[in-house]
Amino acid sequence: MAHKPVIALLGGGQLGRMFLENALRYDINVHVLDPDPHCPCAQLATRFVPGDFDDTDTVLRFAQDADVIGIEIEHVSVEALDDLKAQGKTVIPDPSVLRTIKDKGLQKQFYRDHRIPTADFALIHDKSQIAEHPALLPAFLKARSGGYDGKAVMPINTASDTAMAFDGPCVLERRAEIQLELAVLVVRSAKGAVVTYDPVEMVFDPRLNLVDHLRAPARITNTIAVAAKALALRVAEAFAMPGLYAVELFLTKSGELLVNETAPRAHNSGHHTIEACTSSQFDQLLRAYMGWPLGDPALRGHAAMINLVGEGGTGPAELKGLDDVLHVPGTFLHLYGKHETRSGRKMGHITAVASSHAELDQAIAVTKVHCKVVPRTGSTINQH
Amino acid sequence: MAHKPVIALLGGGQLGRMFLENALRYDINVHVLDPDPHCPCAQLATRFVPGDFDDTDTVLRFAQDADVIGIEIEHVSVEALDDLKAQGKTVIPDPSVLRTIKDKGLQKQFYRDHRIPTADFALIHDKSQIAEHPALLPAFLKARSGGYDGKAVMPINTASDTAMAFDGPCVLERRAEIQLELAVLVVRSAKGAVVTYDPVEMVFDPRLNLVDHLRAPARITNTIAVAAKALALRVAEAFAMPGLYAVELFLTKSGELLVNETAPRAHNSGHHTIEACTSSQFDQLLRAYMGWPLGDPALRGHAAMINLVGEGGTGPAELKGLDDVLHVPGTFLHLYGKHETRSGRKMGHITAVASSHAELDQAIAVTKVHCKVVPRTGSTINQH
Repeated sequence: MAHKPVIALLGGGQLGRMFLENALRYDINVHVLDPDPHCPCAQLATRFVPGDFDDTDTVLRFAQDADVIGIEIEHVSVEALDDLKAQGKTVIPDPSVLRTIKDKGLQKQFYRDHRIPTADFALIHDKSQIAEHPALLPAFLKARSGGYDGKAVMPINTASDTAMAFDGPCVLERRAEIQLELAVLVVRSAKGAVVTYDPVEMVFDPRLNLVDHLRAPARITNTIAVAAKALALRVAEAFAMPGLYAVELFLTKSGELLVNETAPRAHNSGHHTIEACTSSQFDQLLRAYMGWPLGDPALRGHAAMINLVGEGGTGPAELKGLDDVLHVPGTFLHLYGKHETRSGRKMGHITAVASSHAELDQAIAVTKVHCKVVPRTGSTINQH
Repeated sequence: MAHKPVIALLGGGQLGRMFLENALRYDINVHVLDPDPHCPCAQLATRFVPGDFDDTDTVLRFAQDADVIGIEIEHVSVEALDDLKAQGKTVIPDPSVLRTIKDKGLQKQFYRDHRIPTADFALIHDKSQIAEHPALLPAFLKARSGGYDGKAVMPINTASDTAMAFDGPCVLERRAEIQLELAVLVVRSAKGAVVTYDPVEMVFDPRLNLVDHLRAPARITNTIAVAAKALALRVAEAFAMPGLYAVELFLTKSGELLVNETAPRAHNSGHHTIEACTSSQFDQLLRAYMGWPLGDPALRGHAAMINLVGEGGTGPAELKGLDDVLHVPGTFLHLYGKHETRSGRKMGHITAVASSHAELDQAIAVTKVHCKVVPRTGSTINQH
């Protein structure tokens, strides 16, 4: 290429690794910044830099020669992104989008301002204000910033729960009566072209509050699928900037669709797109970064994605039961290259592609029964 | 893994690179040996060793700690593979298979011995023996070893062409009246399980004698497709060893199927399987190496693969016209990471997936008109 473009990626976890796998095909230079020198991207990036992606100076130094700056985690220095954008670089997501999304309060207010349906809420300065909103109970209390993967979220069922609540600026959000949780990926190009993936159904593990598995397409009527895609598209269009938007939705028991939250990046709910869609979420993100035409999001058949979450404590990771899983036709392994497993840590996933939900049931069942990531036998185990 | 297995790959070109892209997902250690420190695999292998894969001692040293030894080119030391197999390592292809295939004379004799239909031929010691086989003319003269990508092959139309013929041990092969060239990939697991891909149609560039593009499925009747798959399976079963077999076939004008030649490795004719098949040729090869169950070879829709071959001389590579190609839905780029382009060098390929051959026609036409790999403007150009 006349000048071979450089993408600077903030964060070197599994999302970055899957992005790299695809970017390799296009022979693109991808530089990665992550504090962990053993992170999943460390060995694969064209250039790996150990460092803190939430430190403005570190990010500015890291990205000074890049053409495009992307993220694989929200907890990065938005100030650095502002500066890099001002230098004329392509920054995806736009710093304004990230600033809105990182603060759960601003994010909720954004939906309200854009008349995007979301569970009713109030922004409160500290927990003493919970008592001012009895009509929102039962509710969830969510820290406006710093929450991740279910942490910094707690249920407030009655006013008496306030005593145990954490303090500081929060969103108090009425608890939706959830029938299903859905996610819809939308991709927006620099030129404003948009593609939308079919809704996926997210099935949570109630113990870990992580996605246990997902299915595509979601088991919903066509009417709801069309409405979910339209709603996710409204979210992306409201943000009005290029990038990937993973829009999580609640389908309530009364059949209403509410936006839960949006991630402005590749997302766990899109991992099945690697095998099951013509163009994967990682391929689309690359196209968005590079200003290329977007890919075809069509889902081929049925797909499930089952997270492989560490069990049995901490230690060097060992995968068990793979052979049993791969005996089920259409199954694939993704291991993220994390050396140490911990109970609850996302270590990889299994994708199954099939021609029906019944076939997926089998793949999901076999995976959940046989496939485990545990500390290697004989290693020191710190049981959690 | 209790012991994380190591695959040692002889050759670090594009086939190795695409193998690595997939192996990354499974977090497998892949070591690569290649004489070129800038080869497509050099930056991606878990460990890269510069060295000659045709040198027995070099290969033995390189692979001493490996569990599995594979190849991405035939021109490797078979003696080293014999030794590594004797040490109890998994060697795919088996040295006996590679020895037969590397010598075009032994390969042809193998088909004859196994009653596998192939163009009639004679093995000759030197060109003076051409005159003894007038019934084989018009024919192709093929050097028994050392030939690659059309080199060391020449047409012998009449006895008078003998004067210009190269000398040494050759196959003199009657020229088939070819209607179509097909290729069928067969994968055989260590446990003897076998899967067969749908036949692809190879369209050659007559100037370069390289595959210009291929289409899957081939535009043949179902009867011929079934017969082609059965014939390719017979070839793999005759070799009776685990691995990938890319079986090239002639469909003659009289409707006969003849085996042209077999490659015991990943093959250009299987690149479309990355996007268009549930499990790609590279995924299958990994499964064969690891002793895992084989993947699903089902072809989804229609696919074309168009080679991007260097044009306009030698120099740092520049890709032109990608944006035009990516505007066609279902198109994907693969660039092999070769820094220098040369006229006729395989630099990458475009895969198109579509729902009909008519749609593929469009993608092929757009690619061939717009997409070129040329020396970068302003660089020194050595016109060939």
